[in-house]
Amino acid sequence: MDRFGMNVKFTAKAGQRDALVQILLGAATAMEAIPECEKYMISVSDSEPDTIWVNEIWNDAGAHKASLDQEATKASIQQAMPLIAGVEAFQIRPVGGKGL
Amino acid sequence: MDRFGMNVKFTAKAGQRDALVQILLGAATAMEAIPECEKYMISVSDSEPDTIWVNEIWNDAGAHKASLDQEATKASIQQAMPLIAGVEAFQIRPVGGKGL
Repeated sequence: MDRFGMNVKFTAKAGQRDALVQILLGAATAMEAIPECEKYMISVSDSEPDTIWVNEIWNDAGAHKASLDQEATKASIQQAMPLIAGVEAFQIRPVGGKGL
Repeated sequence: MDRFGMNVKFTAKAGQRDALVQILLGAATAMEAIPECEKYMISVSDSEPDTIWVNEIWNDAGAHKASLDQEATKASIQQAMPLIAGVEAFQIRPVGGKGL
């Protein structure tokens, strides 16, 4: 089964980046209980002050899809939505490298 | 010291994606000898057949910069250049999450 990943670039509404980071860190903590989620890493950008990147890697696409139906995920999304100005999501298929 | 990362989206010249993936996997193998490089993960995209993503995480920005001066890195870049049609590079500062 191929791994599945997402590189997601969020643009927060002005002044809301750090609040959005906190929600995403909470979502990442919830992912600790989901072994099929290998990585859910949150980064900011020093050159784009409203930008947040989430880099996710999953055992397979089905596990990612199933997570979207979980109550904890739905609650995080509902909390995050009012803080988000834009989303660019890139679906990826990890093939190898260091730390995978 | 803050971690340092790069999310890099390569567009390969037509028909050259898999050759470029092999060069990047070779670069990732060289990174195994560099403890300051925590992750150097290579992915493709099923929806964009010429796209390759590299997600890099380093102990700090200085270690990343030093790696660019190493002979192995320079050789990889020289091999890869003729296969690359475009590059978008996003500098990131990892702040937390699962698998970091």
